[in-house]
Amino acid sequence: MPVRALWWDRGALVLVDQRLLPGRLVVRRLRTAEAVADAIRTMVVRGAPAIGVAAAYGMALAARQPHGDRLRAAALLRSTRPTAVDLFVGIAEVERAWEAGEDPLDAAHRYRDRVVEECHRIGTAGAPLLRRAHGVLTHCNAGALATVEWGTALAPIRVARDQGADLFVYVDETRPLLQGSRLTAWELARERIPYAVIADNAAGHYLHTGGVDAVIVGADRIARNGDFANKIGTYEKAVVAHENGVPFYVAAPWTTFDGGRANGRQIPVEERAATEVLELGGRRLAPPRSSARNPAFDVTPARYVRAFVTPDGVFRPRDLADRLRRKTSR
Amino acid sequence: MPVRALWWDRGALVLVDQRLLPGRLVVRRLRTAEAVADAIRTMVVRGAPAIGVAAAYGMALAARQPHGDRLRAAALLRSTRPTAVDLFVGIAEVERAWEAGEDPLDAAHRYRDRVVEECHRIGTAGAPLLRRAHGVLTHCNAGALATVEWGTALAPIRVARDQGADLFVYVDETRPLLQGSRLTAWELARERIPYAVIADNAAGHYLHTGGVDAVIVGADRIARNGDFANKIGTYEKAVVAHENGVPFYVAAPWTTFDGGRANGRQIPVEERAATEVLELGGRRLAPPRSSARNPAFDVTPARYVRAFVTPDGVFRPRDLADRLRRKTSR
Repeated sequence: MPVRALWWDRGALVLVDQRLLPGRLVVRRLRTAEAVADAIRTMVVRGAPAIGVAAAYGMALAARQPHGDRLRAAALLRSTRPTAVDLFVGIAEVERAWEAGEDPLDAAHRYRDRVVEECHRIGTAGAPLLRRAHGVLTHCNAGALATVEWGTALAPIRVARDQGADLFVYVDETRPLLQGSRLTAWELARERIPYAVIADNAAGHYLHTGGVDAVIVGADRIARNGDFANKIGTYEKAVVAHENGVPFYVAAPWTTFDGGRANGRQIPVEERAATEVLELGGRRLAPPRSSARNPAFDVTPARYVRAFVTPDGVFRPRDLADRLRRKTSR
Repeated sequence: MPVRALWWDRGALVLVDQRLLPGRLVVRRLRTAEAVADAIRTMVVRGAPAIGVAAAYGMALAARQPHGDRLRAAALLRSTRPTAVDLFVGIAEVERAWEAGEDPLDAAHRYRDRVVEECHRIGTAGAPLLRRAHGVLTHCNAGALATVEWGTALAPIRVARDQGADLFVYVDETRPLLQGSRLTAWELARERIPYAVIADNAAGHYLHTGGVDAVIVGADRIARNGDFANKIGTYEKAVVAHENGVPFYVAAPWTTFDGGRANGRQIPVEERAATEVLELGGRRLAPPRSSARNPAFDVTPARYVRAFVTPDGVFRPRDLADRLRRKTSR
């Protein structure tokens, strides 16, 4: 059975509770926009494309609730997390349909189908980049769990492997919430793609000593000039890959490209609770009364990106602005 | 009471069990070289200067044991960990005294005194570098716990603070064993030096966005050309600091400089158990049967180092080889 992050089932949005993986596979059935907002905020569901789809279904659920209010539901869902632009795109798509008198649930389904289909095309477009790679580094989880199906960064890995590439994936564990060791490892294990989990600190060592010959990550928001936000730590990996001449790829559906932001300085970065850093599974790591800083994302300048892997092919950063202009105006 | 990693008390080496901090402050009384070797291997005591001193006392304990054998004890203690050169220096120092018919315990005390005194001088030498810094990043624990007293990287921070500098320390948590959030945070909290723990992934964000204006770390072994081994992740921080024009300092006593290694390629890097990455405090993080890679150190080329802070002052990498030649020949 392929991994899926969420699906619609008889009037409910069903989410895999990603906080409990890999220890337990538990699904949550949500019937209200409020419950969806809560699930996004607490990271039951995470990953930019997946929270966009979840929020789209949140709007559809609001339309079916007694006294469901379009503007209130949209505002509530938008307030959950600030960085991933897909969230806002997914909400807007269903809002538009609802306002136009179309079926909001149909709009949510269409949005989901579009994301799934774009991720599939990302896999096909990106696989040739990895065909001759042996060690591929990825950060966080940009797999099916982050995107409904296929993944962004993991889609080209899946397709390249199916085409016979001999890939070994280095999985950054991705503190503080361990989306790498918990979620990416879980996805790769299910598909028998060989991998090793490494401490985030070890990525540079393998980039420097030759174990890694390509890096591929997802994104939460990509500005017009190619600067992009992604899970905290991405910036470090990009700089170190660049320093070592290792190609660094960013894979994303069009919903993650934000034509409204000229550059990375305009991308808001979420800071999350200090407890995510100071504790793990309820266990205290640091001394009592320690303070912590916990930016959930960082912004990587476009100059460190070898190419963007999109549903419509692979683009150098300098070609991206052109392409985005054409996407927006078509 | 100042923090100390270890001390000699009535025929025993007493070690703070650093695996249990900050939750519990437990000391272990060791009376044999075998027990000391075990404590070094299992990281009851860690940090290059501290394990050098512990091993020196291990030799002194062997000399007091019935049938204590100099060569066997030295071989056992040398086999515990490969990367930190201080270990070998501490053992050799006591071995020499023992062979010459001097009191091995006196030799161990002298070695300890030398390390403590050199760390104190590192503090004085390095403090001026931090006088105008606000945010200082450090990685792993290079404090009193790593060096008996004072620390290497933390010594200039302590002295600068005592001289009135307005410092805020960003503490990398330092996965997999969390020496930052557990040990460095504990030391800074005791001395009321303001700090925040951050995920290792967040260091780049603060280097890039301006929160950090100096980085200072310890070392486990420094080659003649200034390439050095230190806790895994150090290399990434050094590259990203360099990329952002933030000065990167390495603080170490002379026992950490290895004149016998021409460059970093000659430094052996320890790989430790996969469970350190896959588990935390007995709690499984990754899926069953996950593999992991766990290099405990990485090697940072000298070109990323602004200066070495030594007991005899601050040296640019290019001046280091000269200085080492003079140290060795005097």
